[in-house]
Amino acid sequence: MHVIESVRQMQQWADGQRAAARRIGFVPTMGYLHRGHLSLIELARSRTDCVVVSIFVNPLQFGANEDFDRYPRDLDGDRRKLESAGVDVLFLPRTEELYPPGFQTAVEVERVTRGLCGASRPTHFRGVTTVVAKLFLAVKPHVAVFGAKDFQQLVTVRQMVRDLNFDIEILSGPIVREADGLAMSSRNAYLSPAERVAARAIFQALSEARAAFASGERNADRLRELVVSRLSSVPLARIDYVELVDAETLEPVRRIARPGVLAVAAFLGSTRLIDNCLLDPAEETGSATEGVADEDSQQLPTEGSV
Amino acid sequence: MHVIESVRQMQQWADGQRAAARRIGFVPTMGYLHRGHLSLIELARSRTDCVVVSIFVNPLQFGANEDFDRYPRDLDGDRRKLESAGVDVLFLPRTEELYPPGFQTAVEVERVTRGLCGASRPTHFRGVTTVVAKLFLAVKPHVAVFGAKDFQQLVTVRQMVRDLNFDIEILSGPIVREADGLAMSSRNAYLSPAERVAARAIFQALSEARAAFASGERNADRLRELVVSRLSSVPLARIDYVELVDAETLEPVRRIARPGVLAVAAFLGSTRLIDNCLLDPAEETGSATEGVADEDSQQLPTEGSV
Repeated sequence: MHVIESVRQMQQWADGQRAAARRIGFVPTMGYLHRGHLSLIELARSRTDCVVVSIFVNPLQFGANEDFDRYPRDLDGDRRKLESAGVDVLFLPRTEELYPPGFQTAVEVERVTRGLCGASRPTHFRGVTTVVAKLFLAVKPHVAVFGAKDFQQLVTVRQMVRDLNFDIEILSGPIVREADGLAMSSRNAYLSPAERVAARAIFQALSEARAAFASGERNADRLRELVVSRLSSVPLARIDYVELVDAETLEPVRRIARPGVLAVAAFLGSTRLIDNCLLDPAEETGSATEGVADEDSQQLPTEGSV
Repeated sequence: MHVIESVRQMQQWADGQRAAARRIGFVPTMGYLHRGHLSLIELARSRTDCVVVSIFVNPLQFGANEDFDRYPRDLDGDRRKLESAGVDVLFLPRTEELYPPGFQTAVEVERVTRGLCGASRPTHFRGVTTVVAKLFLAVKPHVAVFGAKDFQQLVTVRQMVRDLNFDIEILSGPIVREADGLAMSSRNAYLSPAERVAARAIFQALSEARAAFASGERNADRLRELVVSRLSSVPLARIDYVELVDAETLEPVRRIARPGVLAVAAFLGSTRLIDNCLLDPAEETGSATEGVADEDSQQLPTEGSV
């Protein structure tokens, strides 16, 4: 596995691959890799000839009082995992490489970033789209893969790609969960043992709402209320939001007639976790899809399969 | 000459050129082409294997009370000029192709866009950088050429390219002038005969300041004052700004120790014109250069050469 630290060398490597007609897959990460990331890499590998993974903890996407300084890092462990996964290039830029003195440009996607996480993290998505645009222009991928756990990020990146004419196919990989259903996240490492136990309520709450949806419930308030009441019963959990939004526009919906996303953000102690499930009226079985392409499938595990 | 109207087809054409190892040059324009544009095309041709010119009157870069609706258009004339100039592709997207329903993304360069034209046209450069980013991602050029008349635009595009990692070389072509020194601009077509005569005062004012600079004047206020007093003597002219700024940061300077730009915006009737000259203390002769690369030369004509 090559490790490339500069944008210029990353572009030259990409130019070489493209000159050889090899398709480049890209998985941007902030490191501290878990099986969720590895599933995205596997998806990229299955669709392209070579895979680049970036590790960059992007200061622009953290708010002033957020966890940039203590975001978990394990570069040695990450390198081993990427080697094992057959990744071709680890792109590992330093902060000064991406944000040198004089840096002053931002990419902003407007409407889909306003609600949900954007409401409590007002500069977050601007930081995400700015760094993703930079990474895309450095890595020059044909395909880039994002996880469905960060659903608003996925929708935002897709909107940016469409709006700015990036010639990149965006794929999403399904949420990967722990045995008890908790969505994998690097931030799970922050949880105390008691918080870790309490955190499974997020998935349980979503599962209850999904079951009600599968039984025919289409009223958004009633589905939200199931999640709110379940989470409210957990003393260690504090809800940031529970929203049911259109899967494409992220506008709140009152009744589910098109694919919707039931999205949750909750604090367990000081750790903010997010999760979601797709509710698609066209799907009878309950295994949710975004309705656009197969790769967007985002299954909730059935009992015993996790 | 191919005429391409869709982003997708433009990208496919570019991919074909790149697969054949042909370097693509790009000149974005708003049409109503004059010799200034043609000189940029010539520069692009001299550096690349094929040249794309776009014509798109970009609504995003016009303010609410500006001249979007009456911006001059002459597509038939433009096509003939581009054919004669040996242009390979005219990229001619419709507004709905670049800004379809749901469009909601902006690219913004912050500091260098605040002063000068940005002060009186607060949304202008955001519109410019957004459309230029889109055009770059559609045309996939190796080299793009911008005119030095729109100096702040040139600096802003360079900053965007650097900040977002666009792998594109930005060249600038020198200002091309009419016989009496007026900088060529599609907007000159708005001028009444009397305004057209009065408009030459802009170049005369800059020339007087340049002569003072060549004689050793380094005080920015005194150089600005020469321009202000010359323009103030012209009843049909109204100054928008006269500024002396650093050629790279566009911050106002008090004394010229590094390359500076003396920049003017003035209304002739309701027509707003801009012009500038580079003042480089390292240049003794008076033919101004940006001090970075040869292609940035931006000569003021000597008497009789225009």
